[in-house]
Amino acid sequence: MKLEKVSQPKGTRDFGPKVMAQRNWILTIIKQKFQKFGFDELQTPALENLSVLLGKYGEEGDKLVFKILNSGRYLKKGEAGEVTKEILDQGETKLTPLISEKGLRYDLTVPFARFIAKNHREISFPFKRFQIQPVWRADRPQKGRFREFFQCDADTVGSYSPYADAEMIVLAHEIMEALGISEFSFHLNHRKILNGICSEFCPEVAQERVLACLDKKEKIGNEKVLGLLKELEVSDRGLDGFKKLLEMEAGGISIIEKIEELANGSQLAKLGLSETREIFKSVQDLDLPNFSLKFTPSLARGLDYYTGSIFEIVVPGSEVGSLCGGGRYDDLTGIFGVEGIPGVGISFGLDRIFELLKSKGSFPDAMSEDSRFLVCHVDENCMPESWKLLGELRKADCQGSIFPETGKLKKQIQYADKNGFRYIIVVGPEEIKNQLYKIKDLRTGEQESISMKKIIQTLMRID
Amino acid sequence: MKLEKVSQPKGTRDFGPKVMAQRNWILTIIKQKFQKFGFDELQTPALENLSVLLGKYGEEGDKLVFKILNSGRYLKKGEAGEVTKEILDQGETKLTPLISEKGLRYDLTVPFARFIAKNHREISFPFKRFQIQPVWRADRPQKGRFREFFQCDADTVGSYSPYADAEMIVLAHEIMEALGISEFSFHLNHRKILNGICSEFCPEVAQERVLACLDKKEKIGNEKVLGLLKELEVSDRGLDGFKKLLEMEAGGISIIEKIEELANGSQLAKLGLSETREIFKSVQDLDLPNFSLKFTPSLARGLDYYTGSIFEIVVPGSEVGSLCGGGRYDDLTGIFGVEGIPGVGISFGLDRIFELLKSKGSFPDAMSEDSRFLVCHVDENCMPESWKLLGELRKADCQGSIFPETGKLKKQIQYADKNGFRYIIVVGPEEIKNQLYKIKDLRTGEQESISMKKIIQTLMRID
Repeated sequence: MKLEKVSQPKGTRDFGPKVMAQRNWILTIIKQKFQKFGFDELQTPALENLSVLLGKYGEEGDKLVFKILNSGRYLKKGEAGEVTKEILDQGETKLTPLISEKGLRYDLTVPFARFIAKNHREISFPFKRFQIQPVWRADRPQKGRFREFFQCDADTVGSYSPYADAEMIVLAHEIMEALGISEFSFHLNHRKILNGICSEFCPEVAQERVLACLDKKEKIGNEKVLGLLKELEVSDRGLDGFKKLLEMEAGGISIIEKIEELANGSQLAKLGLSETREIFKSVQDLDLPNFSLKFTPSLARGLDYYTGSIFEIVVPGSEVGSLCGGGRYDDLTGIFGVEGIPGVGISFGLDRIFELLKSKGSFPDAMSEDSRFLVCHVDENCMPESWKLLGELRKADCQGSIFPETGKLKKQIQYADKNGFRYIIVVGPEEIKNQLYKIKDLRTGEQESISMKKIIQTLMRID
Repeated sequence: MKLEKVSQPKGTRDFGPKVMAQRNWILTIIKQKFQKFGFDELQTPALENLSVLLGKYGEEGDKLVFKILNSGRYLKKGEAGEVTKEILDQGETKLTPLISEKGLRYDLTVPFARFIAKNHREISFPFKRFQIQPVWRADRPQKGRFREFFQCDADTVGSYSPYADAEMIVLAHEIMEALGISEFSFHLNHRKILNGICSEFCPEVAQERVLACLDKKEKIGNEKVLGLLKELEVSDRGLDGFKKLLEMEAGGISIIEKIEELANGSQLAKLGLSETREIFKSVQDLDLPNFSLKFTPSLARGLDYYTGSIFEIVVPGSEVGSLCGGGRYDDLTGIFGVEGIPGVGISFGLDRIFELLKSKGSFPDAMSEDSRFLVCHVDENCMPESWKLLGELRKADCQGSIFPETGKLKKQIQYADKNGFRYIIVVGPEEIKNQLYKIKDLRTGEQESISMKKIIQTLMRID
């Protein structure tokens, strides 16, 4: 057997039973909280037309979209006509659109925008949806970066209200609490503030390039960010202002005044500050336990489409990066020709949350399937009675299994042990005669011989 | 806006909130029963290497595998070297392997076999896994046939025991009961019986071609099946035998004797009959309510890899086809060079079950999200208090939302109605003063003004 023949593709993973149970524990919490907060589930296909996907993620993103080869005689059909030697000579850029019309979902936002643009006449806004699905990126695989990974998104679209922004923050806080993550920092900023400051400090430089530099603060430090800004030909006065911005510590809403001063009367920044204040106040009004929201003026977030609040959760001292992030966008569906639908969204990274909980060793014990039993038979003749006992236990809704092979009792017990069964129930000639079965708790080592009815009570009590 | 720009690809679907709730209801039942029966969850990536996928589904299947275009400069790199004009002239068959190395999962069985072949040294057998994931096929889309659809598979591998086969049947019965599907027929047959009969009737014809004809019985009727068999040059004596087989009615285990006669002493058929008898007996031993297992000698099932029991569930008079099907295979991982791992599996079709339940109108009422509330504000000034009330209700784990926009109360109530909220809770100046809030049950029209504590009791009682 060649090993490569049984490997999954680079950057993708198989998830066996134990990891699945842990991932599902996280996903169930996120999903329940999404539903509790009034978000409804949506699923979109893994495949999208490339006309939908391309041009939305920047040039680099377009390259990372997995493209599906057209079916059948793809060289000769299609509106574009036959693929010729001349086209081949012009390379992939020319050839790809002729032989590929579909790609794999790259994130959940663009398919969601496509869904809204398609169905906006039937939807009554505000529309609150969540979506938990895998996405695919042809990125170079490396530690913690995969080609297939899950995103968990919640969005409220069709509302300009700062309460919708505040709700995302409350939701994220509640999810962190439920996951047992308490040592996180919640950073909030506002793109209008940043944009106002940029107009003030460097009106001549494209703002998204400035924001891309600020976004690197955590990774490369203030000095290097300022170096990058200098490369963009930001003036000395501007650099001086950005230096102050970068050095401003995350804090309560009180630092708003400092920002106001820094922004030097920019109307846009003022608007952003006022919205930020409202969001802050709405969150504080709820008196959430163990929660401090940090106003972090240098937070920039990577994505281009944010236009209002931006926020993220990081765990200080952890290497996994932000656990969730999001923000407000003014125009979700404009790229699909439907204007004027604003919204605010948040996205949780399953893999990062998983890595964090794993590194802390903090998946709860209750996750192991506590009351699972394995019915074992002393010899082959006891198999029919073992099978019937299993049937009765299942009728009572107990969760368990049988060792279907003929095999020594010792082997069966080893199997139970190895596969995480909590109990074994032994069926032998004596047991069948007396209708009392030996049940052993593999965790405590305790065992007793009891009736089927009592076994059911034992198994169900724990559930 | 061009409509095609916001459409999902042909043969794929968006699932909005209502349909998602219905699909999830089905999936949750299937998953819970899988777990109850001791199957553990596995997930494999959507992408597999083409070396894993191709050659496993027949020539036709290979064509239907969605292939992913290699990334980057795919024309010039790779072991295979540069794509030249000469290769282009030889067409897709020659070109595809040079520009595509990965494909989308076509079913759940081959990735599972790959997983077992890769990890068989670490797994303690019997290994019981379930897997619920989408699969993709580049089929021509038509009514009820999609390019992306979900399969729900459970398999027990590493066991030859007929109890493992019987367990699949019991599992399927329990799932049908839980889904409220009572009018189904459960058909069982055995490939060894069919193979024995084929050796007897037409030793000169390839058995899989004979089985492919028999498999068409339901669709085209006995006469046409016999016509197809004649085209395969089955002898008159053979045709006579197959006629008897096709006309044999599905029935209890008692018809085994008729088959034994028909098989004319074939040792292979005898072995199959003996195994079928054991499976039958094991199922009958459990005295399942409302369940009759039918021994159906003409049942053939399409897939090549079955070698033992085969079974399926159909609903007489329904057009959706079989709701689930499965069977025993002797050698799951031989295709990946790991020999001697037998198993038995079953696969449920989510879409067919969904279509059946939809046509019967039999999704349970309880599925609608019964106690969801919408907090409405009488005017903008009441918004802060509405928001705080929402916060308190959520602290008590109630499920609901707020109308975040400023808007007339009437508009808010219409919104609640349209989006399936059960309750509205109205917050106005009077309510705030008295700390008594109006709660209205939109289903019954009843309303009362009560304290927050009583609202919580009302909302939680229903849950």
